[in-house]
Amino acid sequence: MRYRDIQLDENGRLRHFLSIEGLKRQMLMDILDYAENFITVGGRSIKKVPLLRGHTVTNLFFEPSTRTRTTFELAAKRLSADVLNININTSATTKGESLLDMLRNLEAMHCDMFVVRHAQSGAAHFIARHVAPHIRVINAGDGSHAHPTQAMLDMFTIRRHKGEFADLRVAVVGDILHSRVARSQIHALTTLGVHEVRVIGPETLLPQRVEELGVHVYHHLPAGLEGVDVIIMLRLQRERMQGALIPSEREYFELYGLTEEKLAFAKPDVIVMHPGPINRGVEISSEVADGPRSVILEQVSNGIAIRMAIMSMIMGNRFGSEEEEQ
Amino acid sequence: MRYRDIQLDENGRLRHFLSIEGLKRQMLMDILDYAENFITVGGRSIKKVPLLRGHTVTNLFFEPSTRTRTTFELAAKRLSADVLNININTSATTKGESLLDMLRNLEAMHCDMFVVRHAQSGAAHFIARHVAPHIRVINAGDGSHAHPTQAMLDMFTIRRHKGEFADLRVAVVGDILHSRVARSQIHALTTLGVHEVRVIGPETLLPQRVEELGVHVYHHLPAGLEGVDVIIMLRLQRERMQGALIPSEREYFELYGLTEEKLAFAKPDVIVMHPGPINRGVEISSEVADGPRSVILEQVSNGIAIRMAIMSMIMGNRFGSEEEEQ
Amino acid sequence: MRYRDIQLDENGRLRHFLSIEGLKRQMLMDILDYAENFITVGGRSIKKVPLLRGHTVTNLFFEPSTRTRTTFELAAKRLSADVLNININTSATTKGESLLDMLRNLEAMHCDMFVVRHAQSGAAHFIARHVAPHIRVINAGDGSHAHPTQAMLDMFTIRRHKGEFADLRVAVVGDILHSRVARSQIHALTTLGVHEVRVIGPETLLPQRVEELGVHVYHHLPAGLEGVDVIIMLRLQRERMQGALIPSEREYFELYGLTEEKLAFAKPDVIVMHPGPINRGVEISSEVADGPRSVILEQVSNGIAIRMAIMSMIMGNRFGSEEEEQ
Repeated sequence: MRYRDIQLDENGRLRHFLSIEGLKRQMLMDILDYAENFITVGGRSIKKVPLLRGHTVTNLFFEPSTRTRTTFELAAKRLSADVLNININTSATTKGESLLDMLRNLEAMHCDMFVVRHAQSGAAHFIARHVAPHIRVINAGDGSHAHPTQAMLDMFTIRRHKGEFADLRVAVVGDILHSRVARSQIHALTTLGVHEVRVIGPETLLPQRVEELGVHVYHHLPAGLEGVDVIIMLRLQRERMQGALIPSEREYFELYGLTEEKLAFAKPDVIVMHPGPINRGVEISSEVADGPRSVILEQVSNGIAIRMAIMSMIMGNRFGSEEEEQ
Repeated sequence: MRYRDIQLDENGRLRHFLSIEGLKRQMLMDILDYAENFITVGGRSIKKVPLLRGHTVTNLFFEPSTRTRTTFELAAKRLSADVLNININTSATTKGESLLDMLRNLEAMHCDMFVVRHAQSGAAHFIARHVAPHIRVINAGDGSHAHPTQAMLDMFTIRRHKGEFADLRVAVVGDILHSRVARSQIHALTTLGVHEVRVIGPETLLPQRVEELGVHVYHHLPAGLEGVDVIIMLRLQRERMQGALIPSEREYFELYGLTEEKLAFAKPDVIVMHPGPINRGVEISSEVADGPRSVILEQVSNGIAIRMAIMSMIMGNRFGSEEEEQ
Repeated sequence: MRYRDIQLDENGRLRHFLSIEGLKRQMLMDILDYAENFITVGGRSIKKVPLLRGHTVTNLFFEPSTRTRTTFELAAKRLSADVLNININTSATTKGESLLDMLRNLEAMHCDMFVVRHAQSGAAHFIARHVAPHIRVINAGDGSHAHPTQAMLDMFTIRRHKGEFADLRVAVVGDILHSRVARSQIHALTTLGVHEVRVIGPETLLPQRVEELGVHVYHHLPAGLEGVDVIIMLRLQRERMQGALIPSEREYFELYGLTEEKLAFAKPDVIVMHPGPINRGVEISSEVADGPRSVILEQVSNGIAIRMAIMSMIMGNRFGSEEEEQ
């Protein structure tokens, strides 16, 4: 509810894209439908559409991530936007005030959109709450909270392979606790009405009361994979783990790494997903990652299309809402 | 005189933009008039004009400054130029010779304009004296010497609010000694013929013989603000101060920080300016910075327009002078 | 033979540009002819052609080189491509596997061309062997192995001054052992059929069995320069030298530095080349570098034209080969 207030304008149209929470099923479907228009752009010889020509997209990265920045930069450039990359050393902006002054300045320079990456949960929401009405904000990952464009590209990939969501059983496997992707995925899957969402992992890597998100919990990988249509592997966020939550990578792979053997428990036409970059031999074997059930690289292509779709949707919804708010 | 030789071509048209010194009143007025054309571009949905299409603007930053680099990068991109950002570790180019070789190389790559930022005073002039005749140079701040585009955006902001310069009383407050902005501002204000320019600050932060620039000196803030139309606050350049020129930030704010109370000494329709980034509670209170008299964020918007104007003016003046000089 | 397999498609057209080795005389001549089309672009007011519009050129730099990156970035932008700069800390990609995963990801993002710089010899070939068939790879310098675009711009510069290659005597002077440029130059010169290629340097800076490349070896500079039409000076790669291969820079200059005196041994219309950046007073005197026989800055301009030519050639050859291979 709180989120809807920020993400949607008064006509219920998408204004910012901060988290899956607060968005209704129809909105997610609209985004998926719109993204179909961009999937062909990547395959064309001239990968360029003029939708954001003359607009300035600013990548505000408070946490370095070449990979994520690259996908947004490519999406914006293929929409013909001007792109400004700003890497901010967080130590220099510890005071909330100076962050706000920086935002005010970028607004005054007529930047149109901020793509925000931050190590702290809630940073993108904070920024969205404080920008001028005509500015658009996209959350490109905030702490362990959300990474909603990643979740949407995953949903897009699932739909392209499976069609309807209603009958699907989807398993999310691994380090749910430290994954911003997992939270966004679970929200998206339940909102889109999949039949069953399972989370599979050791107790130490699952959030407390995770069942309240509407998921079934499994600690045993083969049992959890039984009959699923989609497996979403998570990256073992080694850098995020405090203390010894897992005994060793070798033992983790033994128990929770996806191998051909364990894959056999799922449906024969299961698809295997991973947000990348993959830790081969830690959470997934190379055989599976590169095998016929893997759609990992399709996810990357779809990520550009989804980001192009979201960027142009929220920018296109800008002019009406501006009139009302100013 | 020395400056005019470098900044103007043989027909008296602007060739480089290095310092306000050496430029006549009419030239400054021409720049302000031309900038009016660009003030609307920022507000348009498509913020792009084709004036520098196919030209290469190179940001040569020998001193890091994301903020300044961003404004020039945006201005150049909105003029449709290709932008090249080159950050030079000064230690690697201590020999003047290797700097010259670098310039020669960039010229040979058909770069058209160098936007130069350097910690040493005179660096942009040095570069302008040594480039090929068709290359244009803009000073984006050199040591404590000059920051002329900042001064021009300030003049532009003043004119948009006050109209004529002739009747104005303008106070420049704070660390005049270490401010490249202040010098450029004082030259611009006196050239444009304002009625009175005052500088206000503790003796330790004023240059010796500052009166020779045609300004009135005040050490007491309320007295100096008496009846002024425009207040230009300066950033306390903490990083530039050698030794203990001020007792403490708290005491500085007590004496020279702009508060609502002290603002009352100025004219009721006074405007408050600051080049940014502001040190809240050091040289200015948040109440004033965010208050109705503040035009600080307008300055930022105006900065893009002024830079677009100067870039396209000097580039447009390129072809005639080239024929004469080659 | 091994190289031809990778660099050429099944119709013998250029697919990647990795090394001069493996390319026939006619192919080199075709590149030189095609580059003539781009030499005028740099001098035009609008330095932009739409040949790569909508294509994504990715600079994959595993070794920092602002200078080389700049030339490729400018060439790609003037062809209207979107440019993505990715600097990779080699330590993070020590495992071949994660390099391959990174390539797969960039391919999935529909990048069209990788411009690769790497400290290890063979890196660009490795990448070319592992990319998808529609991806193009250019070697922008790999270890001490090759720097073929540099060699081609040198050939282009020679041809513009000397016309036919057949009658020329060319001397390559200096640190042949550590120079990736020298190897590529020697291959290009012999493939283009110059009358004689000489290498001149101290024994410690010449590769073993260098004669097998078809060159004549001189250890005495004046003797080696006798009657040559072209002198190619090499940069003293101080950072590459292990141990004390030369007694001192002063002594090196004494013996192998090019001065006006030594230049007199060459033909009167000799041209002097250097890949830059030059070490004045180490391998070349300022008198010679800036003198009438020097074409060093022309080389820089020609470098943009050659890179534009190679980029658009290999991209233009993409579509036919794609059909065959997929």
